[in-house]
Amino acid sequence: MMKDFFKVTELGDVLKLATGFKKTPDETIPIQQAPDRILAEDIIADRDLPGFDRSVMDGYALAAAATFGASEANPALLHLTGSVRMGEPADGSVGRGEAVKVATGGMIPEGADSVAMVEHTQLVDPETLEVFRSLAPGSNMIRKGEDFPEGAAILSRGCLLRSQEIGLLAAFGRASVRVCRKPVVGIVSTGDEIVPIHQEPGPAQIRDINTYSMSALVSQSGGIPVSYGIIRDRYEDLLATCLRAVEASDMIIISGGSSVGTRDYTIDAISALPESEILVHGISISPGKPTILGRSSQKPVWGLPGHVVSSMIVFHMVVKPFLEHIRGRTDQNGKHRNVSAFLSRNVSSAQGRVDCVRVRLMEKDGRLLAEPILGKSALINTMVKADGLVVIGLNSEGLEKNTLVSVIPI
Amino acid sequence: MMKDFFKVTELGDVLKLATGFKKTPDETIPIQQAPDRILAEDIIADRDLPGFDRSVMDGYALAAAATFGASEANPALLHLTGSVRMGEPADGSVGRGEAVKVATGGMIPEGADSVAMVEHTQLVDPETLEVFRSLAPGSNMIRKGEDFPEGAAILSRGCLLRSQEIGLLAAFGRASVRVCRKPVVGIVSTGDEIVPIHQEPGPAQIRDINTYSMSALVSQSGGIPVSYGIIRDRYEDLLATCLRAVEASDMIIISGGSSVGTRDYTIDAISALPESEILVHGISISPGKPTILGRSSQKPVWGLPGHVVSSMIVFHMVVKPFLEHIRGRTDQNGKHRNVSAFLSRNVSSAQGRVDCVRVRLMEKDGRLLAEPILGKSALINTMVKADGLVVIGLNSEGLEKNTLVSVIPI
Repeated sequence: MMKDFFKVTELGDVLKLATGFKKTPDETIPIQQAPDRILAEDIIADRDLPGFDRSVMDGYALAAAATFGASEANPALLHLTGSVRMGEPADGSVGRGEAVKVATGGMIPEGADSVAMVEHTQLVDPETLEVFRSLAPGSNMIRKGEDFPEGAAILSRGCLLRSQEIGLLAAFGRASVRVCRKPVVGIVSTGDEIVPIHQEPGPAQIRDINTYSMSALVSQSGGIPVSYGIIRDRYEDLLATCLRAVEASDMIIISGGSSVGTRDYTIDAISALPESEILVHGISISPGKPTILGRSSQKPVWGLPGHVVSSMIVFHMVVKPFLEHIRGRTDQNGKHRNVSAFLSRNVSSAQGRVDCVRVRLMEKDGRLLAEPILGKSALINTMVKADGLVVIGLNSEGLEKNTLVSVIPI
Repeated sequence: MMKDFFKVTELGDVLKLATGFKKTPDETIPIQQAPDRILAEDIIADRDLPGFDRSVMDGYALAAAATFGASEANPALLHLTGSVRMGEPADGSVGRGEAVKVATGGMIPEGADSVAMVEHTQLVDPETLEVFRSLAPGSNMIRKGEDFPEGAAILSRGCLLRSQEIGLLAAFGRASVRVCRKPVVGIVSTGDEIVPIHQEPGPAQIRDINTYSMSALVSQSGGIPVSYGIIRDRYEDLLATCLRAVEASDMIIISGGSSVGTRDYTIDAISALPESEILVHGISISPGKPTILGRSSQKPVWGLPGHVVSSMIVFHMVVKPFLEHIRGRTDQNGKHRNVSAFLSRNVSSAQGRVDCVRVRLMEKDGRLLAEPILGKSALINTMVKADGLVVIGLNSEGLEKNTLVSVIPI
């Protein structure tokens, strides 16, 4: 029980804790389902790609030496001996001074080392070709293994699979691939004033927003949200639900409990879970300071603030990096996603905490402006208006108008 | 039949054609499934949010006037008359000089207009409260309707539903919502040299990459990819498949056919579809110039270049905006997503076309650099290395090292 301990942890120190948690195990899935998943194996080229010298233009395969010195005024004359059929090996080889017709994607016959583009040639008669350019060997073709040679390491465990990586897996015949299982995130909403969304709120009640905003964030971050409903502010109920959730999930998010009493229940419930420990009780971030991070059975258990905006901002800034770790990600693919913009007005900030300012992005006179959105962190309209977050560091007293800032898209 | 016509269209003019296509019809889905979907109705606040004056802090509800002039040295003394239970209306009202205990999220009783934070108070005895700050009316609370008043337009048709919009729908009790149906995109891969990915390629064959890279791009762009397999380079086969695909899809992508012969088949097949027209035959973009855009039954039919990189770049630059239109999107949410970086070296470009340069993003000495990736557009490794695209305009001869460029994430 550590409920009397409330020392705020610096954001950077909290983020360092992510690697202490267990990654999800692997599973094998068809590559059609693999976009945005994390690779869980190293992929080695089991053959050359392409497997043959390949034309990248429509034209004529030939030995480049036969065209050296050729020009519009002084074309090289070659003997056209046939054509390459797509998907079939060329029969015979191309002798010096000979050419063979080839289409984009066709195989370059033996003896040829380049392709003259059809635009740079003219057929004098069905067997005689004029070439108006001097070609370097290798022109307009890719060599066997030029994309990836056999044995090359092509993708590493931990990388995010984008459309290009999916294409690459297809190129090597990988119809299925090992990926990290999507983390299951149990979501527990707490608060005596919260009612289910299909219910008409009473005079002092409010509908359950956090279950849905948190679920959406989990889905968009590569996890599978599982809702455990709304739990009243009773320790026994919260503990019973958390026990079920920690058993079935890779991470737990308890939202609500911004009031002192509920916060205590959250701390107590996390502390009573199997193999548990409270790691963080308060983070130097605004909004979001009353965030709790515990561990149970090597799984993170979050106590997020109840205010809708605070919980979403803490998710973006703190929870998401943990989810990235748990889902196995170690690469840098697509990591640089912040947008640069000029602040439209001065923003002040308190020293000793990281301030996350909601901003709207807008173009004005050809510049991208970040306009701070003011408003309490209990107002969801401020998040709906926002395109991103600007982070003002621990030791800054604020940022001046026209400062170039880095905006985290939300 | 317009196959003899090959006038390159400027990229900007191609993009203007998007609005000429039919949007998908609406459907109703649960909000849990709605992240990243496009809203197909206007949402009006049917009640105030919140429905009551609400505390955003743990503290004491009171009439601010009773604290005017209060300070640490000269606290205001108030009579504590009770406490507000979460989720229940306060009974009775707060008289001048009275205070009622309230937790975060609790209802402010009648007569009170602000909340003194618990940190700024001290209980002298169970019924006597000292307040050490002078409060302005409205402090530490949100008013009934302050987030959204009844009757306010809160979300508009055509907007992308992010996690915050999902939360907002929950706040108004919308368990389900009308969205645009996801566009079904039929994908046809062509080429006599292409074999299915589970097959061992022969000496002049290559596996089908485009079906998988295009499917991944369609999924990530909010569409549903449906593969029509690999079609040999025969007009009759291509036409038969396109007829099936156009019947069942909202958009068709025919990939492959970069060679002149196949390009002709694609043009002929599109021209033979019901109510068809060739709109674009060549775009001033590199890579990707031989792109074809036709229309059949108000649906776009694309003939994309066969080179894996060209087809992916054309998807990002040209096809995706059409897909955004068809899936109903009209908002600006999250539209500013380009990343600013400094070019690490000079890049030359031909005038008269838009050049799309693949770049890798990397941090160096605190600056974000965009390093151009050189390599033929038949090499998928260049896309796997890339984090984004830098676009060099029609009339530019190139960009110099250290130019600040806008990088489209890929």
